[in-house]
Amino acid sequence: MTSYQRIVLAARPRGEVKASDFRLETVAAPELADGQVLVRNDYLSLDPYMRGRMSEAKSYAAPQALNETMIGGTVGQVVASRHPKFAVGDAVVGVLGWAEMAVSDGTMLRKVDTSRVPLSAYLGAVGMPGMAAWYGLNQIMHPKAGETVVVTAASGAVGSVVGQLAKLRGCRVVGVAGGPQKCAYVADELGFDACIDYQAGNVAADLAAATPHGIDAIFENVGGPIFDAALPRTNAFGRVALCGLIAGYNGADMSIKNFRFLLTSRLTLRGFIVTEHMEYWPQGLSELGLLVAGGKLRYRETIASGLAAAPGAFIGLLQGKNFGKQLVKLG
Amino acid sequence: MTSYQRIVLAARPRGEVKASDFRLETVAAPELADGQVLVRNDYLSLDPYMRGRMSEAKSYAAPQALNETMIGGTVGQVVASRHPKFAVGDAVVGVLGWAEMAVSDGTMLRKVDTSRVPLSAYLGAVGMPGMAAWYGLNQIMHPKAGETVVVTAASGAVGSVVGQLAKLRGCRVVGVAGGPQKCAYVADELGFDACIDYQAGNVAADLAAATPHGIDAIFENVGGPIFDAALPRTNAFGRVALCGLIAGYNGADMSIKNFRFLLTSRLTLRGFIVTEHMEYWPQGLSELGLLVAGGKLRYRETIASGLAAAPGAFIGLLQGKNFGKQLVKLG
Repeated sequence: MTSYQRIVLAARPRGEVKASDFRLETVAAPELADGQVLVRNDYLSLDPYMRGRMSEAKSYAAPQALNETMIGGTVGQVVASRHPKFAVGDAVVGVLGWAEMAVSDGTMLRKVDTSRVPLSAYLGAVGMPGMAAWYGLNQIMHPKAGETVVVTAASGAVGSVVGQLAKLRGCRVVGVAGGPQKCAYVADELGFDACIDYQAGNVAADLAAATPHGIDAIFENVGGPIFDAALPRTNAFGRVALCGLIAGYNGADMSIKNFRFLLTSRLTLRGFIVTEHMEYWPQGLSELGLLVAGGKLRYRETIASGLAAAPGAFIGLLQGKNFGKQLVKLG
Repeated sequence: MTSYQRIVLAARPRGEVKASDFRLETVAAPELADGQVLVRNDYLSLDPYMRGRMSEAKSYAAPQALNETMIGGTVGQVVASRHPKFAVGDAVVGVLGWAEMAVSDGTMLRKVDTSRVPLSAYLGAVGMPGMAAWYGLNQIMHPKAGETVVVTAASGAVGSVVGQLAKLRGCRVVGVAGGPQKCAYVADELGFDACIDYQAGNVAADLAAATPHGIDAIFENVGGPIFDAALPRTNAFGRVALCGLIAGYNGADMSIKNFRFLLTSRLTLRGFIVTEHMEYWPQGLSELGLLVAGGKLRYRETIASGLAAAPGAFIGLLQGKNFGKQLVKLG
């Protein structure tokens, strides 16, 4: 019988997440029953939504249970199988959590082709973050060629895909990111038309300069003062895809002062959780996979090494210290 | 040559509107040219949107010009015509402003049937306010039988129609209004399931008690603290029709503290101006007219007497002193 390590939620954070909110444990891998498969995880995905699950406050999903394996997307290899659809060696994407290994009954486990798309991309541009971008753009923002699109957290796993998809549509795309390094990446490597460094402290003025024809659609990952600065720039009948509010995940005041522009600009705003729209995933993942395989959709990863590094990497993610998709590489 | 009185905007208000922001003038009625019609107005409509037009701030329409007749909907009679489509004696609804008479070239002038619907109703339940209610309900809120709908400014010209239409759909309908008299009217005469008196100072607790199964759709006329109290009660995939923000029309802080619930409840919010959706008016006005004629849609009017009373009645409207549709009767 083999054993493996996992990380459980030890305590619900108050305000900022601390390393002591997590606990590393060694557990025994159980014998497989019929219909089960044992997966060795190669990469864990770290995502902002996990912060919400750590709280007990009303949210869109049940809270992460205390003393249970932290939730999260994973990619890995099947190492033992008593499941008819999975064989040893299969590359799989799943939601197996912060653990070196996990037993699955096949639910939400999906075989993936790694011949043209790297395994880790199935946690990013060709996974849940990519789908969040695809869904918000195609089902909420509906950008037309020539329109101006603003994307917050623009260098991140979601925002980077939103902006590149909007560029492929012929939009003017303005990103917002933290720091000159991320902004240079967004503008120079991802091809956004402009990127505003919110850490420079002139978001409203910089946004006005970068959106001379106003803003037709916003993909919002951050909320708070950055979203407040964008609202007065919106054009009539603008659209807002509300995907995340990372600025408030640690309890900061998330008041919106410029709410009235939702009326005066006759905006349509929709909050969404992409895992509630699985009917779009086959089409979206197919399109995203082809774009990545064809070199038309770029992404960047920040990779922490070893399971024990996950809490620190997650805390860094909430502080914007990652650069692109935050992963943890195991083994 | 006849003369008539009109009211012009004399000054742009700073903060609360004052009587001195208006000026009563006597002007000569011009000779009619070919294609023109002279209308004697019987009623003027006073509506919250006019406050927005009085400012120069960016809004959805051009500002009301200084020293020009105040904008506004009107109903009246044709008293002279050189227009092929209008005859003396025709009852007409138009946008002729705060004036006893006006010359029109027929633009936005419409003959109405007063045999089953009173003339003044074409400024209320069977006019622009009724259409705002109809559009928000049918094109944004999409309420299903059994769902809970919240309507602010529930005794007003728009809110009263929203709630009655939602009741006809089989919804649980909760109004918010100012004062026990308006609330009694909303619950007892209009048939809402409950009405919350925001002046009682317990909006959050009262709203929780009145919406035991949460809120599925909101028709928002007010904004500010009342909307903030409703957001945490929203159910997943709720809809918000954002029609007005009267709480902020005089410059009050309209911050929304509970903005995050737009994400956590995955709400769809849309700000709208019903005059931008004229394609729905024939259908909507037909339905509303049949409901009023059949006694299935009730409304209440507050009628000020004489043109000189218009500024005071408008100021009262912004303070919530009207009860139902605010009109000015002329002549």
